[in-house]
Amino acid sequence: MSELTISRELTAAGCTAQMELPLQSLVREIIDAATEHANSLGFGYARLIEEGNAWVLSRLSIEMSRFPQVGENFSLTTWIESFNRHFSERNFEICTSGGEILGYARTIWVAINIATRRPADLTAFTELEKSVSGKVCPIPPQSKVRMPAEFEHSRNYNVVVSDIDSNRHLTTARYVELVVDCLPLEVYDHFTVHKFDISFMRECTFSEKLTIAHTFHDNCLIAVISGEDGKISCTAKMELKARI
Amino acid sequence: MSELTISRELTAAGCTAQMELPLQSLVREIIDAATEHANSLGFGYARLIEEGNAWVLSRLSIEMSRFPQVGENFSLTTWIESFNRHFSERNFEICTSGGEILGYARTIWVAINIATRRPADLTAFTELEKSVSGKVCPIPPQSKVRMPAEFEHSRNYNVVVSDIDSNRHLTTARYVELVVDCLPLEVYDHFTVHKFDISFMRECTFSEKLTIAHTFHDNCLIAVISGEDGKISCTAKMELKARI
Repeated sequence: MSELTISRELTAAGCTAQMELPLQSLVREIIDAATEHANSLGFGYARLIEEGNAWVLSRLSIEMSRFPQVGENFSLTTWIESFNRHFSERNFEICTSGGEILGYARTIWVAINIATRRPADLTAFTELEKSVSGKVCPIPPQSKVRMPAEFEHSRNYNVVVSDIDSNRHLTTARYVELVVDCLPLEVYDHFTVHKFDISFMRECTFSEKLTIAHTFHDNCLIAVISGEDGKISCTAKMELKARI
Repeated sequence: MSELTISRELTAAGCTAQMELPLQSLVREIIDAATEHANSLGFGYARLIEEGNAWVLSRLSIEMSRFPQVGENFSLTTWIESFNRHFSERNFEICTSGGEILGYARTIWVAINIATRRPADLTAFTELEKSVSGKVCPIPPQSKVRMPAEFEHSRNYNVVVSDIDSNRHLTTARYVELVVDCLPLEVYDHFTVHKFDISFMRECTFSEKLTIAHTFHDNCLIAVISGEDGKISCTAKMELKARI
């Protein structure tokens, strides 16, 4: 099974003020689709944990022409673009049930040893190469986010219970929310997310006090989330486009 | 159709640190099931908005023997217990796909005019009485939450973009998260939510500065969320039980 498709419907309880799928919910669906596909190929959580390893999301890039709207049925199709003993590249196509392509996503997953948090060696998993698909992802690979010399805005955030996932770290979707929440509601009334890039460097844990710094110029937000020790947990870039 | 059942699977990306369905996600599923059932009966959003009205959740009570675990398939069955021209009582049974009953919920929905925010008169909807089901909900109706004379803990919270729903108010699931987040992670490692009651009085909007006050005694949390003007937005009571 070189591709897997999951289907969803956007309900009223799950949409934004603009009646669309929230970016953070799209990211959660991307992770769910990746998890289900990896499990179905026999390279999921259950297999990796046998050697004390687990997949960790390292980078994510999304480019959307538009987001699913409330009541709309949509699907995510995922496939593996490449695989080596250190990481795998997995892509996504987001469509309506009518076949309209809404956007694409690229992700990079690294296998780590869950005890040491160091990269695992996946040499034994060479059969995974057979699952690589030739399907084309038309969005470019993520380029490094260029950080400004100084950020114009900064706020603190204390990690709470509802932020914590099954690995006892700040959950990926919440990082995305913290970035989305850098801007006021009116911005999203007039603009929609066109491109979104995020890179993860360091995991955050319960009750940590984070600093979220950002700048916003020319419809482009650059944000960085750091821990109390000043170490960067993630960097993100979000490009908006005007609603028509 | 006097009952409606929705089925779900709890994925790894959607569970708590304790590998269970988060209380706030259960609440979102409850609202989704209610919305779908009301729509299917012809008394949903589309019908009420014709007269400028909408259903608003006023009270919610949940009692769980246990929560769905990661990878587990579960379902919510909803039915109407009673209906009059001011409000309707709608109940829920939460089961595993194997038929184990995990818990029940009771909700009270009030129809309001969305312009005036005043109660609507549903006299014209008497046909809804035909949809009342005789199915029994074994948990008692919500009793008034008794507020302590003084709260021991208090924190502030600024309403951000990701809190806002399609009505441009703080979304119900986020109120529940704010209550859950009153307690530290270790509490949930040792205890699970047994009963949860919440009542909504006043809607919160974007950028409002809220105060969340709580006390926690004998495994019971009492919390109140208020706006800047001191007016209460919601009160909640959460009873925990020790994990076995």
